[in-house]
Amino acid sequence: MFQAKARADVLKEVVNVVSTLVDEVKFTVNADGLTLRAVDPAHIAMVDLTLGKEAFEDFKADEAEIGIDIDKLNQFLKLARSDDVIDIKHDEDKRRLNIVVGDVTRRMSLIDTTGMSDPKVPSLNLPAKLTVKADDLVQGIKASETVSDHIALTASPEGFEMTCEGDMDQVNWKKAKKDMEFLEAPSSVRSLFPLEYFANMLKAVPGGSSVTMFLGNDYPVKVEFQIAGGKGEVRYLLAPRIESGD
Amino acid sequence: MFQAKARADVLKEVVNVVSTLVDEVKFTVNADGLTLRAVDPAHIAMVDLTLGKEAFEDFKADEAEIGIDIDKLNQFLKLARSDDVIDIKHDEDKRRLNIVVGDVTRRMSLIDTTGMSDPKVPSLNLPAKLTVKADDLVQGIKASETVSDHIALTASPEGFEMTCEGDMDQVNWKKAKKDMEFLEAPSSVRSLFPLEYFANMLKAVPGGSSVTMFLGNDYPVKVEFQIAGGKGEVRYLLAPRIESGD
Amino acid sequence: MFQAKARADVLKEVVNVVSTLVDEVKFTVNADGLTLRAVDPAHIAMVDLTLGKEAFEDFKADEAEIGIDIDKLNQFLKLARSDDVIDIKHDEDKRRLNIVVGDVTRRMSLIDTTGMSDPKVPSLNLPAKLTVKADDLVQGIKASETVSDHIALTASPEGFEMTCEGDMDQVNWKKAKKDMEFLEAPSSVRSLFPLEYFANMLKAVPGGSSVTMFLGNDYPVKVEFQIAGGKGEVRYLLAPRIESGD
Repeated sequence: MFQAKARADVLKEVVNVVSTLVDEVKFTVNADGLTLRAVDPAHIAMVDLTLGKEAFEDFKADEAEIGIDIDKLNQFLKLARSDDVIDIKHDEDKRRLNIVVGDVTRRMSLIDTTGMSDPKVPSLNLPAKLTVKADDLVQGIKASETVSDHIALTASPEGFEMTCEGDMDQVNWKKAKKDMEFLEAPSSVRSLFPLEYFANMLKAVPGGSSVTMFLGNDYPVKVEFQIAGGKGEVRYLLAPRIESGD
Repeated sequence: MFQAKARADVLKEVVNVVSTLVDEVKFTVNADGLTLRAVDPAHIAMVDLTLGKEAFEDFKADEAEIGIDIDKLNQFLKLARSDDVIDIKHDEDKRRLNIVVGDVTRRMSLIDTTGMSDPKVPSLNLPAKLTVKADDLVQGIKASETVSDHIALTASPEGFEMTCEGDMDQVNWKKAKKDMEFLEAPSSVRSLFPLEYFANMLKAVPGGSSVTMFLGNDYPVKVEFQIAGGKGEVRYLLAPRIESGD
Repeated sequence: MFQAKARADVLKEVVNVVSTLVDEVKFTVNADGLTLRAVDPAHIAMVDLTLGKEAFEDFKADEAEIGIDIDKLNQFLKLARSDDVIDIKHDEDKRRLNIVVGDVTRRMSLIDTTGMSDPKVPSLNLPAKLTVKADDLVQGIKASETVSDHIALTASPEGFEMTCEGDMDQVNWKKAKKDMEFLEAPSSVRSLFPLEYFANMLKAVPGGSSVTMFLGNDYPVKVEFQIAGGKGEVRYLLAPRIESGD
């Protein structure tokens, strides 16, 4: 059994987070709320999302797995204003999700979850941790997009830096420790990432929010932020691109 | 002779109504105002529009037929602000329409109307009549567009319903009688329509307006609404798609 | 040596003026400010721009030539708000321009200017001179774009006129002398121009500004206007299209 009411903006935040990586996803619900874990088809990135039942206006659920076509849910949510309350009901017999916004009901066939994987979150030892405003990062990412496909993230005891090296041009974004919300880096660490993935992850951060990143040397980056006004948590993992010696 | 002044927003409403069905149209003018009747190339829909001379800032006309390329008129009106007053003058000798907005005059060649048909409005016996806000319907139509190409309209003594059935999903929009401006239906009637035509008709309704629909069983729908702040009337007719038995 | 600070909107005005004609341009800087002259690849139009050092928040320069990829500069400026102050520094050793907006630095490789021409501004005897609001002209130009590829400019002692003749339709824009800021025309003169070039030149005029035009008979038009709140000057020259006799 799963039956809930949620504000449209909360559901839109969830859809934004997931749609950057996958088209279909398995939501797991239980008495505490909703969780999901997914890996993108190229196995470069993972998302791990938790939405507590407090994030909903109303929430009742037994343990259940619900396979959703993210694009269909997104289309439907576009009809709603941010503060509309969406009614969601799992029809187990017909294997459908019934979603109501205003006068409109959509009965959506669910995806079979039997083949869908349950990715494990790897345990990583990432020595550097830092917190910055997502909006600040986005300007550096936009400037980078015209220069190269990759972005290097560097954390040191002095600050945090993003660098993008093209054949002709270079883009550099830099914050000193004193201008950051948090920085802890025992030494200088640096990893290179596919820019498009990193950019999409940051675009999914709700406006005005901070992100916390965990970074190592030629190691994945972990990007954490809150959704649903603090009642939900997102953890992205992104694999590094190992730089060749030349 | 035809010579008139009209607010740009009134002419834009006329263009919106007509351009959903045809590219070229014959305006008929006389001392009382302007009328037009047109059938789309696939003979699925008809529009019947009347714009009284009170809808104009100034209006002088003898009986005349004027063949207009709707897209050209539309391009020109896009240059005008809603409250600009447009000057229109029929130059019978040169077979042109001269339209002035601000400092700009466009002299537009007219289309030969000799080959253009004069469609007759069929007399239909449509038992159900109902009035709803167009903006309310539009949300149901948008939700339907991702699900199927057809939409079923159902009126019953209890209310009005739009249903769209896809292979996987279903969209349903419903209003109870008590939430409608008007409803009169002796029994339940239902007809199926091509969604794109129906959607375009409703998109042509001026913002904030109500539409009145007349409905039968596997029969055309008549959609009526006002333009020009009540000084003009539009009647659309849309042919049903007869549902196969399976 | 070249090192300057400028508001983003000033640099955007320069980019708008230049990008309508060329992709790459040579800026010449000296103690007084910045100048550039360029001819489009088809040799139909020329731009001659001067930006005094007062247009900058801060300006230090020896004589130097700097070859810029206009599109790259434009991309970077899009990241800035109008009132952001951009930091510019010429790195002569690495042949780069380093531009800083907020936390982002772009190091941009310069283009080799050795092959780039130094166009001479031809001396022209243009008998008519007139000044009008650019925004007024733009409406006439937009109306013309759907009618033909060419536009005729006519100045006479009575006023100024733009005319566009298509196969079917005609667009005419007209201002009487009394409604113009300035008009001096000893007789009626008329020249025909490629509409796209003329339209792009006027789209580069800062909002709310006036343009001064100098016109002759089948002769180039000179279009002059100010940028950077009067601290910069733009002169465009556009070659006429000679009308055939038929």
